[in-house]
Amino acid sequence: MIIIWDLIVLTVGREDTGKRSGESEAEMIVMMLPSDANPKGNVFGGVILKHVDLIAGLVAKRHSGRANVVTASIDRMVFLKPVFIGNALIISARITYVRRSSMEIEVNVEAEDLDDNSKVHAATAFVTMVALDKYGKPIKVPHLVMEDENDKKRYSEGELRMNSRLKDAGKV
Amino acid sequence: MIIIWDLIVLTVGREDTGKRSGESEAEMIVMMLPSDANPKGNVFGGVILKHVDLIAGLVAKRHSGRANVVTASIDRMVFLKPVFIGNALIISARITYVRRSSMEIEVNVEAEDLDDNSKVHAATAFVTMVALDKYGKPIKVPHLVMEDENDKKRYSEGELRMNSRLKDAGKV
Amino acid sequence: MIIIWDLIVLTVGREDTGKRSGESEAEMIVMMLPSDANPKGNVFGGVILKHVDLIAGLVAKRHSGRANVVTASIDRMVFLKPVFIGNALIISARITYVRRSSMEIEVNVEAEDLDDNSKVHAATAFVTMVALDKYGKPIKVPHLVMEDENDKKRYSEGELRMNSRLKDAGKV
Amino acid sequence: MIIIWDLIVLTVGREDTGKRSGESEAEMIVMMLPSDANPKGNVFGGVILKHVDLIAGLVAKRHSGRANVVTASIDRMVFLKPVFIGNALIISARITYVRRSSMEIEVNVEAEDLDDNSKVHAATAFVTMVALDKYGKPIKVPHLVMEDENDKKRYSEGELRMNSRLKDAGKV
Amino acid sequence: MIIIWDLIVLTVGREDTGKRSGESEAEMIVMMLPSDANPKGNVFGGVILKHVDLIAGLVAKRHSGRANVVTASIDRMVFLKPVFIGNALIISARITYVRRSSMEIEVNVEAEDLDDNSKVHAATAFVTMVALDKYGKPIKVPHLVMEDENDKKRYSEGELRMNSRLKDAGKV
Amino acid sequence: MIIIWDLIVLTVGREDTGKRSGESEAEMIVMMLPSDANPKGNVFGGVILKHVDLIAGLVAKRHSGRANVVTASIDRMVFLKPVFIGNALIISARITYVRRSSMEIEVNVEAEDLDDNSKVHAATAFVTMVALDKYGKPIKVPHLVMEDENDKKRYSEGELRMNSRLKDAGKV
Repeated sequence: MIIIWDLIVLTVGREDTGKRSGESEAEMIVMMLPSDANPKGNVFGGVILKHVDLIAGLVAKRHSGRANVVTASIDRMVFLKPVFIGNALIISARITYVRRSSMEIEVNVEAEDLDDNSKVHAATAFVTMVALDKYGKPIKVPHLVMEDENDKKRYSEGELRMNSRLKDAGKV
Repeated sequence: MIIIWDLIVLTVGREDTGKRSGESEAEMIVMMLPSDANPKGNVFGGVILKHVDLIAGLVAKRHSGRANVVTASIDRMVFLKPVFIGNALIISARITYVRRSSMEIEVNVEAEDLDDNSKVHAATAFVTMVALDKYGKPIKVPHLVMEDENDKKRYSEGELRMNSRLKDAGKV
Repeated sequence: MIIIWDLIVLTVGREDTGKRSGESEAEMIVMMLPSDANPKGNVFGGVILKHVDLIAGLVAKRHSGRANVVTASIDRMVFLKPVFIGNALIISARITYVRRSSMEIEVNVEAEDLDDNSKVHAATAFVTMVALDKYGKPIKVPHLVMEDENDKKRYSEGELRMNSRLKDAGKV
Repeated sequence: MIIIWDLIVLTVGREDTGKRSGESEAEMIVMMLPSDANPKGNVFGGVILKHVDLIAGLVAKRHSGRANVVTASIDRMVFLKPVFIGNALIISARITYVRRSSMEIEVNVEAEDLDDNSKVHAATAFVTMVALDKYGKPIKVPHLVMEDENDKKRYSEGELRMNSRLKDAGKV
Repeated sequence: MIIIWDLIVLTVGREDTGKRSGESEAEMIVMMLPSDANPKGNVFGGVILKHVDLIAGLVAKRHSGRANVVTASIDRMVFLKPVFIGNALIISARITYVRRSSMEIEVNVEAEDLDDNSKVHAATAFVTMVALDKYGKPIKVPHLVMEDENDKKRYSEGELRMNSRLKDAGKV
Repeated sequence: MIIIWDLIVLTVGREDTGKRSGESEAEMIVMMLPSDANPKGNVFGGVILKHVDLIAGLVAKRHSGRANVVTASIDRMVFLKPVFIGNALIISARITYVRRSSMEIEVNVEAEDLDDNSKVHAATAFVTMVALDKYGKPIKVPHLVMEDENDKKRYSEGELRMNSRLKDAGKV
């Protein structure tokens, strides 16, 4: 999907003045309830992934405006620490790289034990979202305006990951 | 509940060094889906209230540590603007006032139209949460450490509202 | 919202012959499941509020017919008794007062312990719903036909509360 | 299950003074939302059945007190009229017949079109619930106290249905 | 509904070359979570029925193609064995009989204890689904192509059950 | 998590006679409803991932018996084709590789358009699950018994992927 979508990109009428990552970044907190876990109390990885995808979609939607955004891929996600019922999941997301219709969103997941306010880094994910027009065709999104060295570092790392994804998909 | 709970407050062993509101404040973003709305597309007020209560409980839990926290009351909540399917709800909450086992949490709700990033102030709520020990008895929580004039202003306004609640409940 | 909506009220074609509160009153029973509670077993106040808003909307919709009804406000709601997983929530709602497009619905919540059929009064709420036409404009609803002294008493109390709401909102 | 459960019934200590059906009858109203229907707008039969089973369990639990109640069977259920998103489901349930640990609950389902308050009879169900003790063994429940001819008529019809169920299950 | 729907059946344009039951049969596995059970851990019968209806609708939809399918009835369903939180429900469904717009689907439910891979037969259901056109009128579905003696046996048993349903509904 | 868990593996008492992949493989079908999609009708990637994780957990639980299984990682997942409301998701999963406490599960996702029975391959995922004992420590699971050349091919490909995961995690 990455392959095809990035070759046929439509032109949009309005001028692309770009957007900063700060204009679309988001944080959300989700309480982990019994319905999110197996009977042993461990929260399902899939529940975490559902929220990761949701916030990535939100950030991508904010960056691309009126377009419809869909998930193209999620890079390997390692669950570093178990999450339990009663924990609060703190999920933050920021756009790191943009290529025509594709956006890479970095998502960080922390699990907070509300009994003692301790937090552990539970997972990091890189989600690629694609902007579509109303016919389902990829549409160019605003370029990413970088403000400091950190932005530039994240951008060039994102570019490397995007190239690697395209290479893995059999397409350079 | 306010009445009784505030008269019988248990003493906890550890010293109360207080907590700042910044240590417990929280923000969450929730996408409004078709299951959150009536068939005309208007998000149910009750869905918003559910998230308001959830984040207030999270902030109160963060402030009070190992205690169990429950909702004692929610002040009148006016829905200033309609919220629609596809909007993102941005809900932020901060503790404003503490009296023994009771905490007042101010919750602000914005609705964001993700097509054009415009936001409207949808509602404000004042939620009173109570901390309970494992037997269900009210337990004293850390006092609120104020850092600046804004903190003090919010605190004294919170005190007025708490007095008004107790007066309405027939108890001064 | 109350303010603006009540000033611009559209006229509807059909004659207003009124409706009795008995034509729209409703009762619902909801089992409290693990997904409705925190890990300590206490049902979230927000879950109760969600059902309170749902039944108020149902009663308002029954009273106003084809209109779209939305929540304008919920008065302060005090949770008098804790509700637990396994309890049945018995929620009853009745329209008490009507002013042009606004309806006040009184909602009572009881929690029943199904092990011994004992019931406690958990909360009372006053919800204001507004009827909208298909363009989102407030629309006049049938007046409330009173049948006995109790109806009249509830009506005048509702009128006082509505005046108080408008006053609090900075508008008489 | 009916077969085995009814033969091994445990004796409980307290005297059986019986209960009237009015002590356990229940009514609930459920709004039908988009998540309850197929993409054409028709509410799934299974969603209705879920609520039918829930209210039957509530009535059986009310009648049997501290016991755990589980569904033994649901007689053929015919969906007489389609139910749509936006309809309110009005579900009422009453115990009609008791045999040792088994209770027959009659459940009636009406669908109300909230635009014009018209109601249609959507379905009727007969649910058999069984009361279990904490070891999962069937336990005798209070007998059903009949107050008038209607109660007696329902009881003898229930008895016929129960005999028919046992006969179908290969056991008289 | 069976009665009326089967008398007024519309003719569809395309030739009916029939379909085999193997073209529409389906199996699904569902994990039973805390939100599917009562506080004692027993899965609600209604939760099982919801999935039974869902898979029957899927099989009927596969058999009938573009039509809208709705549930007409579910025959008596006996819950042979209790199902618990943490069990996996294995639900398989196959079309057994077709009469104009009506399809009988046989659904088998097994409960698997994932600790030791043991399975028990929890229930069997016969669901009647009806195909509707876009105006809500019954529409003829492909006839059922039988391939072996088992298919024929199931078909003639299905025919007997369908006749019995129509007889019970007061219509031969 | 992979790193640490694989170094400290506990010994279990019973003899490891191994299991075939056929003993744990699973298929599930899930209807995509409005609550699974954004307002444009596209099913969220995260909803698909939730089901992918759920079935992988089921397969791993079947293979490892009494152990508790949790998700360690999900390899990059590419969404090849969009999935829409009303589609049926057909998800099949099989264990491909086992290393002490870690199991690799291959999950395939097809989306079926129920109007014309056409299916598209929507995604493939490789999920690593880890078996834990009751103290949360990794526990050795049965080895994978291979029956034919396909099993062996999948196993050696799985071994390469597992080595690559460990190398990426900074541990050989």
